[in-house]
Amino acid sequence: MPRVSQDHLDARRRQILDGSRACFARFGYEGATVRRLEEGTGLSRGAIFHHFRDKESLFLALAEDDAIRMAEVVAEQGLVQVMRELLATPRHDDGEQHPADWLGTRLEVSRRLRTDPEFRGRWAERSSQLTDATRQRLQRQREAGNLRDDVDVAVLTSFLELVLEGLVSHLAMGLPADDLEPVLDLVEESVRRHRRTG
Amino acid sequence: MPRVSQDHLDARRRQILDGSRACFARFGYEGATVRRLEEGTGLSRGAIFHHFRDKESLFLALAEDDAIRMAEVVAEQGLVQVMRELLATPRHDDGEQHPADWLGTRLEVSRRLRTDPEFRGRWAERSSQLTDATRQRLQRQREAGNLRDDVDVAVLTSFLELVLEGLVSHLAMGLPADDLEPVLDLVEESVRRHRRTG
Repeated sequence: MPRVSQDHLDARRRQILDGSRACFARFGYEGATVRRLEEGTGLSRGAIFHHFRDKESLFLALAEDDAIRMAEVVAEQGLVQVMRELLATPRHDDGEQHPADWLGTRLEVSRRLRTDPEFRGRWAERSSQLTDATRQRLQRQREAGNLRDDVDVAVLTSFLELVLEGLVSHLAMGLPADDLEPVLDLVEESVRRHRRTG
Repeated sequence: MPRVSQDHLDARRRQILDGSRACFARFGYEGATVRRLEEGTGLSRGAIFHHFRDKESLFLALAEDDAIRMAEVVAEQGLVQVMRELLATPRHDDGEQHPADWLGTRLEVSRRLRTDPEFRGRWAERSSQLTDATRQRLQRQREAGNLRDDVDVAVLTSFLELVLEGLVSHLAMGLPADDLEPVLDLVEESVRRHRRTG
């Protein structure tokens, strides 16, 4: 039997993550049955669980994958820009796969953190990427003189994360988002260096 | 058979709402089985569903009840104060009933809005209380000269609601909240009249 190449394994893993992301987003963790995961990924359960021990492991890998991708955007462009892109992304009700499907992943993480203490423990180890990327970016902005200097970087980081969490929740609920651009302007202005107005 | 008094009906309805609130918060909508609702309320299923047509009707009544209670606090003290009280309220993992159990209701509303289009339609008619109360309070604050006047009241309302949604999500996930007081100070400062600093 020929040895399966690492590239092939990576591509297959990616296929499973992308297919199951839409599935978890659409049906929720409990609703994402093995049959639906098969349909979403186009792979058999045998193939899926060759790569991931069980549904829980698959979901955790997916949530971690999404957090890493977001952290990369934050490092480049900041957390408010991530929020602006969320607003610009058309949402969908048709079950088609879509970049913003990590919204659904994130809300499932939120719900399971609340209802499942074991999950809380497993997730805690994996959830620091976004906070770290945000704090580092704000620190660089402060050094460049773009950030207000009367509030701790840690407080500004928590503020931006709280707004992001609210935005994720808002979008995931399908609430209207047309009017949120000026809200993000206000958020951005709130962390920037204050212009003297007197 | 003696006629049951309206007071008695109201008290029974309140007992069901309060008992089921903790139950939905702890187990989620699907997990709040009829047996658990019986245990949570101390009433039989017959008594519960004499007052509410089905579990869905009970949950909607509960969500609406919570929104009205929050709107009352907002009208008196503003949305940031509601958030401060959320922070001050000790959270619990023991399933005991607790005033902040509306956190759980709210997160269940969020999740069902995302996964259940029919629920979205039913909820839309009931969800305006909090927004209306917040907007009216901000309008009064503007007239009193306490609010910044370079940003629309509608934008400030959406901003505060977005932060609240983030805070609810944060607390419901059991994330540490010790460091959020200065974040709320920043939020409050962001909507207040700017002091001239030049």
